[in-house]
Amino acid sequence: MQYLDSDHVRFNEKKDRVVILNQAALPNRTEYLELSGEKEMWDAIYRLQVRGAPCIGIFAGYAMAVLAGQIASSIKDGTEEEQRVRFLREFHEKKEYLNSSRPTAVNLSWALNRMEKKAGEAVSGGVLQACDVLCAEAERIHEEDIAMCSAIAEYGLTLVKDGDGILTHCNAGPLATSRYGTALGPILLGHERGMRFSVFSDETRPLLQGARLTSYELQRAGVDVTLICDNMAGMVMKKGLIQACFVGCDRVAANGDTANKIGTSVVAVLAAYYKVPFYVLGPCPTIDLECESGENIEIEMRRPEEIKEMFYKEPVALPEVKCFNPAFDVTDHTLITAIVTDRGICYPPFTESLKKAVEAAE
Amino acid sequence: MQYLDSDHVRFNEKKDRVVILNQAALPNRTEYLELSGEKEMWDAIYRLQVRGAPCIGIFAGYAMAVLAGQIASSIKDGTEEEQRVRFLREFHEKKEYLNSSRPTAVNLSWALNRMEKKAGEAVSGGVLQACDVLCAEAERIHEEDIAMCSAIAEYGLTLVKDGDGILTHCNAGPLATSRYGTALGPILLGHERGMRFSVFSDETRPLLQGARLTSYELQRAGVDVTLICDNMAGMVMKKGLIQACFVGCDRVAANGDTANKIGTSVVAVLAAYYKVPFYVLGPCPTIDLECESGENIEIEMRRPEEIKEMFYKEPVALPEVKCFNPAFDVTDHTLITAIVTDRGICYPPFTESLKKAVEAAE
Repeated sequence: MQYLDSDHVRFNEKKDRVVILNQAALPNRTEYLELSGEKEMWDAIYRLQVRGAPCIGIFAGYAMAVLAGQIASSIKDGTEEEQRVRFLREFHEKKEYLNSSRPTAVNLSWALNRMEKKAGEAVSGGVLQACDVLCAEAERIHEEDIAMCSAIAEYGLTLVKDGDGILTHCNAGPLATSRYGTALGPILLGHERGMRFSVFSDETRPLLQGARLTSYELQRAGVDVTLICDNMAGMVMKKGLIQACFVGCDRVAANGDTANKIGTSVVAVLAAYYKVPFYVLGPCPTIDLECESGENIEIEMRRPEEIKEMFYKEPVALPEVKCFNPAFDVTDHTLITAIVTDRGICYPPFTESLKKAVEAAE
Repeated sequence: MQYLDSDHVRFNEKKDRVVILNQAALPNRTEYLELSGEKEMWDAIYRLQVRGAPCIGIFAGYAMAVLAGQIASSIKDGTEEEQRVRFLREFHEKKEYLNSSRPTAVNLSWALNRMEKKAGEAVSGGVLQACDVLCAEAERIHEEDIAMCSAIAEYGLTLVKDGDGILTHCNAGPLATSRYGTALGPILLGHERGMRFSVFSDETRPLLQGARLTSYELQRAGVDVTLICDNMAGMVMKKGLIQACFVGCDRVAANGDTANKIGTSVVAVLAAYYKVPFYVLGPCPTIDLECESGENIEIEMRRPEEIKEMFYKEPVALPEVKCFNPAFDVTDHTLITAIVTDRGICYPPFTESLKKAVEAAE
């Protein structure tokens, strides 16, 4: 099925470029970009042409494999040992550069570190062989993500029943990951099996991932979806239209505090008030046991123009008006009913249940 | 001072048109419209060229006075009694038509009923004299609003102190009322007296009254204002940046349940969770003692295009995606710390305190 394609991030045939579906142009234009330079890769992440924590991880794998190929072909001189040292040094520099594009999602640094570790192991066979190994590793990250999403979808599906109303914020569907997605996974899997849900999609200001991507993905998949502005989430809960909230995550701290798209914590506070269960869905690589609580998570601050100008025909505020534009917020673990991972459903106390899930994944 | 002008709704010199500042064009264009036909008056309300519950009431007064003049000049034949009957019948028809433009704010029907009552009294002196009386009544509604806003500002100012952070939703400033405004009244009055507040203005999707109007009014008045997306309100409260929430109201039920711009109830739930006082500010005509609770308030539903297309360079969702687009929501009285009226501050139980305020106003 169309919505289960996961070719929105991949190698080109020669494996010397990364091909991405430009998510910033959706839903109006289906446009693929072929990226080979590190600057355009960095931009693609920063400008949200590729986005969604797991998808950024997958992209980072492919990107480093492509960059490794370029480094290898630029190295002609020196002894084999000198070549290896230079390869790893340049690999590290490019990895650090890509890592600086967005700070909040753990998947980016997770995938970059994994690729660097693999480079260190593989380089003993020579820089050219290392490149082949890195290409295979990038594809493995992608395949693993597909498997993790399927597992999350299965676990998540046990939390809802036919006919339920489900509210989601931002986009944690196939575009944000690979096949199925995280937060949208149970919905798409249930739909495949003949279940019917009515989904309410927060538009998710300022960059409208809910309007542009979630409602697009669900509509194309034939799921009943209704788009709302973020500030309408309270009203649909009050009307009894929502039986569960499903959201993705960019980083989950050891205590369960969860960084996700700005506004997620508002949905969680509303869900607690209206007594609707609030579920976070994400694969184990999104759990950061090194990070004790949400207070240790760096929140990316973005440009005021995203609020005041982006997408608009004309500015919506005076140019001199100050803006506060955090890309993410942290949802306190006390507001979270459960965290659904590829290794099972974690309930409070999260310090214990998350640790178990991560250990099972290792 | 510029922000204390209240000529954004008024008669033209001949009193045969209503002049309004087109609020739909702000902040990019300062454009005045002269309206004389009932259809364009209805449109001006529906299309939010004139908006804000008290301002719609003021506009309705001027509009009915202008329409009364047109009815009077069209009546040439018949006895004086026949002329009076016809005048009142046509006046009633036009009043009902304008009343159909927006259902939620009580000020519209309140002002229309007040004008009709005055027409019934004044017509005994002949239809031409009735027109003069109605012009004076429209101006009186406007003057009374200025006085009510000043009183609200004084009362509201006792609830905050120098240096406080204040969050507001939608626009309840001078543009939404007359001078001072309701929710912005204490801020502007305090600012005049040398107090400093840091105000966070929710942009207020879908029609962006917070971005387009509130941040515009406060910036021009020299108040420190920061624009945020609605879904960022939780984060600024969590960071301890907010000491009070000030919002306006479109209709307050006898038990204190308050209809106001969609998303207001979300701010109230967040304020309760983060232990920030939540204040509703509005004049006594906004209190509807006939309306027992919020369940009896009709919520206006608006077009999906406002969410999907309005203001945007290109659509932000697939055309076939469903939308849910309520213009208002109801904030449960249990979430409201106090309701600030021109007759004093009402605390719970609101059934008693609101009744007292309304009686004092009569």
